[in-house]
Amino acid sequence: MADPEVTVFPIGRLQEFCERVFRSFGVPDDESKEAAEILALADLRGIDSHGIARLHAYATMLQNGRINPRPEITTVRETPSTATVDGDNGLGLVVGPRANRIAMDKADEVGTGWVAVRGSNHFGIAGYYVLEALQRDQLGWAMTNTTKIVAPLWGSERMLGTNPIAIAFPGHEEPPIVIDMASPAAAFGKLEMAIRKEESIPEGWAIDREGHPTSDPAAMVDGGAMLPLGSTRDRGGHKGYCLGAMIDILSGVLGGANWGPFTPIFTTEFEEPARRVGVGLGHFFGGMRIDAFSDVDRFKRQIDDWIRTFRATRPAPGTEGPIIPGDPEREAELVRRRDGTPLVAAVIDDLREVSQLSGVPFD
Amino acid sequence: MADPEVTVFPIGRLQEFCERVFRSFGVPDDESKEAAEILALADLRGIDSHGIARLHAYATMLQNGRINPRPEITTVRETPSTATVDGDNGLGLVVGPRANRIAMDKADEVGTGWVAVRGSNHFGIAGYYVLEALQRDQLGWAMTNTTKIVAPLWGSERMLGTNPIAIAFPGHEEPPIVIDMASPAAAFGKLEMAIRKEESIPEGWAIDREGHPTSDPAAMVDGGAMLPLGSTRDRGGHKGYCLGAMIDILSGVLGGANWGPFTPIFTTEFEEPARRVGVGLGHFFGGMRIDAFSDVDRFKRQIDDWIRTFRATRPAPGTEGPIIPGDPEREAELVRRRDGTPLVAAVIDDLREVSQLSGVPFD
Repeated sequence: MADPEVTVFPIGRLQEFCERVFRSFGVPDDESKEAAEILALADLRGIDSHGIARLHAYATMLQNGRINPRPEITTVRETPSTATVDGDNGLGLVVGPRANRIAMDKADEVGTGWVAVRGSNHFGIAGYYVLEALQRDQLGWAMTNTTKIVAPLWGSERMLGTNPIAIAFPGHEEPPIVIDMASPAAAFGKLEMAIRKEESIPEGWAIDREGHPTSDPAAMVDGGAMLPLGSTRDRGGHKGYCLGAMIDILSGVLGGANWGPFTPIFTTEFEEPARRVGVGLGHFFGGMRIDAFSDVDRFKRQIDDWIRTFRATRPAPGTEGPIIPGDPEREAELVRRRDGTPLVAAVIDDLREVSQLSGVPFD
Repeated sequence: MADPEVTVFPIGRLQEFCERVFRSFGVPDDESKEAAEILALADLRGIDSHGIARLHAYATMLQNGRINPRPEITTVRETPSTATVDGDNGLGLVVGPRANRIAMDKADEVGTGWVAVRGSNHFGIAGYYVLEALQRDQLGWAMTNTTKIVAPLWGSERMLGTNPIAIAFPGHEEPPIVIDMASPAAAFGKLEMAIRKEESIPEGWAIDREGHPTSDPAAMVDGGAMLPLGSTRDRGGHKGYCLGAMIDILSGVLGGANWGPFTPIFTTEFEEPARRVGVGLGHFFGGMRIDAFSDVDRFKRQIDDWIRTFRATRPAPGTEGPIIPGDPEREAELVRRRDGTPLVAAVIDDLREVSQLSGVPFD
């Protein structure tokens, strides 16, 4: 189905544009390249909300001086298996990869490495970091806290971000299991889509500004909040809240970043949170060398077996049966590498504006 | 409300009974003591399904030779920050604490410690292990896989256990945040309660043997399955499935234990799973020294601030507002230490049977 609002671009062209835009704001060449790769990977994997659609925000924040293009990233505390890193208010797309490499380097030395980060900004898709770890035969972990939008169970206001967690497990012949999930019941992108299409949203996704359940996505945007995974007490909403809290504390509190409702707002119209309780945004990365626990070959063959076992689960009526975490993103990547990446008109308009801001031609 | 089916016991008496029962089956004194403490803690914290109600299963498995009372627990692989431990088919209540101490000892040395375990059995409440870590100013992690009972999203059969994860964060003046959650939408204990009371269960908890959603708890027990946190695709059931999968792979595959549908069945009537893919049941423990990342005092004061901030969340209509993870269990512990621990008639009958099996007097 051709969508009239959509134009398809080869990913290489989008990635090159991103890279040149970052360079134009003074981000060093290598870091501009990696930052652009992370955005492009999000688009390739079908996570459109975290790809080039975010370039406008990054670019505006670089231009406003809200993000430091050449941060001096420092390790402020460390042990053989840990570090706390201050990102000096750099791009999350620059600070994140650096901190993740520190975690992986420590894992190479002592089996595992764990890095808490403060003074960062939005780091792109969590999945990128754990895919990097697979290149080193490590199990990577990545988490970040994000701008408040989710209510805790029994709350009626925004207190936590969508706080994603990612982890990946490599197979031998099978593609890896890649878990990359946010902690609310639904993705904010789906809610935006419902607004665009003037559709209602399922029960369990959101509350309105008074804290009442709502099926109107506009009521959520207008001072309401998203609900944690599980949605209600009956269905385990306290567990989704726990998951969001865990990610917030590991990403935010542990390394000295802001947390909870005080997490910085990632937007072009910067609004200061009510209180500062730390430095910038926070992340948490881990790398665990597979051979620190197991023969690597044995582990990968067992993952193959796990994948095949779960694919063979008897399907629920009306479905084709369970899929393996990472399947949809890998399938999207195959299609988009071949056919190009679709961008909606609003994103293309944003990119034209970025082109004007940065002086980098888009068309 | 006095429940006619319930009798209240002082916890000390129950704990002593457990300890003597373990000793009677040849479990060494120190280990019997710790195993009994773990069961008693579950009862104190109101997690009745994981406390003394399980003694009958442990005792029968010890008597049948299904569990080794004097395991030779060995470290089969290690690095400075990791170990893989073989529990030699010991009680999970013995293997778990040992492996957890190895994780914490490694953290003392190099900042963090991570231990994958195979050849174990049911380890009690995950929360016990992370409370131990708090004693050392560490952030503890504990996970385990368990007997299959949960369907993956879009599946119609049992493939994963209830696979819990626990982590705890200490406050300075405030009590700790203690997260201890299983990965399905609802606890199996609630489903059992519904059967006992002949009540229906909410939508989203379970499917019947054909894979159709059911509100009849008996239909779940009779060959159906529980649903992962999130329940359906719309409400994020894929995320609950991811969480259960992550815990299964870290607890089962990584250390060489059984996993997924092949996880051993914890029951008195032992039934062999379809296939062996590893050794016994598996766990995964972590300890992270707080001072490996942060000044300990600063961290604890920030946790105080986090707790107070979240307690002050505007309440949802008809509620008293969000609680902090660990609140219900701590409140149960206060009441039960003072007033005693209620046991239902069926559990008391089981304990009488344990008394006969072991020769340890109960009344």
